[in-house]
Amino acid sequence: MSEYSIGVDLGGTNLRAAAISRSGEMLGKISGKAELSAGRDAVMRDIAAAIRQLQEDTGGSLAGVGIGVPGFILMREGKIIGSNNLQEFEHFPFRDEIERLLGGARVILENDANAAAMGEQWMGAGRGVDDLVLLTLGTGIGGGIISGGKILHGYLGMAGEIGHITVDADGNPCGCGNRGCLEKHASATAIAAMARLLHLGDNASSEDVYNFAVAGNERAKMIFTAMGESLGIALASLVNIFNFPLYLLSGGPLPAWDFFAPTMLSEVHRRSYTFREAKTRIERATLGAEAGLYGAAYLPFENQPLAV
Amino acid sequence: MSEYSIGVDLGGTNLRAAAISRSGEMLGKISGKAELSAGRDAVMRDIAAAIRQLQEDTGGSLAGVGIGVPGFILMREGKIIGSNNLQEFEHFPFRDEIERLLGGARVILENDANAAAMGEQWMGAGRGVDDLVLLTLGTGIGGGIISGGKILHGYLGMAGEIGHITVDADGNPCGCGNRGCLEKHASATAIAAMARLLHLGDNASSEDVYNFAVAGNERAKMIFTAMGESLGIALASLVNIFNFPLYLLSGGPLPAWDFFAPTMLSEVHRRSYTFREAKTRIERATLGAEAGLYGAAYLPFENQPLAV
Repeated sequence: MSEYSIGVDLGGTNLRAAAISRSGEMLGKISGKAELSAGRDAVMRDIAAAIRQLQEDTGGSLAGVGIGVPGFILMREGKIIGSNNLQEFEHFPFRDEIERLLGGARVILENDANAAAMGEQWMGAGRGVDDLVLLTLGTGIGGGIISGGKILHGYLGMAGEIGHITVDADGNPCGCGNRGCLEKHASATAIAAMARLLHLGDNASSEDVYNFAVAGNERAKMIFTAMGESLGIALASLVNIFNFPLYLLSGGPLPAWDFFAPTMLSEVHRRSYTFREAKTRIERATLGAEAGLYGAAYLPFENQPLAV
Repeated sequence: MSEYSIGVDLGGTNLRAAAISRSGEMLGKISGKAELSAGRDAVMRDIAAAIRQLQEDTGGSLAGVGIGVPGFILMREGKIIGSNNLQEFEHFPFRDEIERLLGGARVILENDANAAAMGEQWMGAGRGVDDLVLLTLGTGIGGGIISGGKILHGYLGMAGEIGHITVDADGNPCGCGNRGCLEKHASATAIAAMARLLHLGDNASSEDVYNFAVAGNERAKMIFTAMGESLGIALASLVNIFNFPLYLLSGGPLPAWDFFAPTMLSEVHRRSYTFREAKTRIERATLGAEAGLYGAAYLPFENQPLAV
């Protein structure tokens, strides 16, 4: 009987779960909506039900469950202490409650971008690389730092908030209290905000802006240039701080890579001595939305001895 | 016979070396000038002579030699590849040459700020703290990151360049190619540059500016406020990235703490959700110029089993 684990990815919109073998084979997957309007307890039951369903379908020995959620996590307590999407879950004993509902399985709660970084390192663009940073471009910008093959957590589990690196000290105000956070200048939300300011439509999404750019719209192209500048400023600081060999980007705006990446890369080149001297890759992540599932599933394997 | 190691700190001005026991006792110390004008080979001989002198004076068993130098280091090669103060040493086989001159002792070459961070963690303000960042305010701003009790090197040894975090994307140009690097806005050199611009004297040092501030000069106080703002912007990003419990500052401008720290701390508080939520200390380092000697001496102990 082979050993597997279950990764769960709970977002503001979707709830997904997958059973994944120790060798990284996806054995089963469940995708659904996160029914946040039904209340916290209903979502907790949905998570437990998805896990049990995968257990029944998979058979074998369950190493544990990893759950990725957006927000600031206290690792030791297994709690979310701050999340724009999951406010009803703040300070709730999330991990312990899932463990209780499952009646025994070991559960690890993790930040979703940290989980995605681990997933890319395990099975995606970061295979074979022990040190990398992943930026997830979405409503906000999440970050995950893998150092020495492990997630860098900081002392409480709140490390990796790359989206809140300051790229413009007097820039757009952010919900975190800061001004000019990277995510106010380079997330999908920021792209849409720039589109409104540039009269590309009040409801243009980042995908719409991408389509405008493909069609040759100069304002749309300029938005991606500005996005590339902001990413370049933040990445130059990251390269100078970490001297890691690999920095990955993922998320909705990734198809616009050819519009924002040239500016991003030339900014990093200009701004970072380390980038110019030390071979450093800045590339697209490859697992897309699956990264978080792989990474969450990897967590229970991480801290236990390998089965022989 | 007790075991000891030797730490060397080579700067643009001074050459110092100390013999330090495994328990952190300083057994002997040599301080002199770094005679850079006499040429690289003369400096290498001076280093070797200082080490041999300490060996003779100390007796016991030498675990190894750690040497802290300013600049970008390739750890595996034991070379400096870029340094404002030690340009004649760039790409020179520094570590191997010292090992040759000593005829056998194990030598580790390290960035000086990394060594200082290790020193503070071992015997200074960071005792008992496994994760910390040290900023050294001097001609430039150096940085050392201790993660899990070890220096974070990145993949070549160039990590920790905190002085080149961007705090103002369109700010003062830096020798590294970037604009608005922290060290262009908060180093001793930056304080002196601001003093010139504010007509506090063409040759006012950061110490002069401190004395002006003590005497009540409003422009001098304003310089430290601006310095505090820049440090606050960079530290907020660092706190968001690392979620470490401790960030330390050292260097010449430290006596001006009461002039720049209140602004620095209020900027970090305002700009970092993590700082507000997670108990985070930002404090003065305590070992001063000795930190680099302690840290360099610690390096040979670090990767070998403890003597029983």
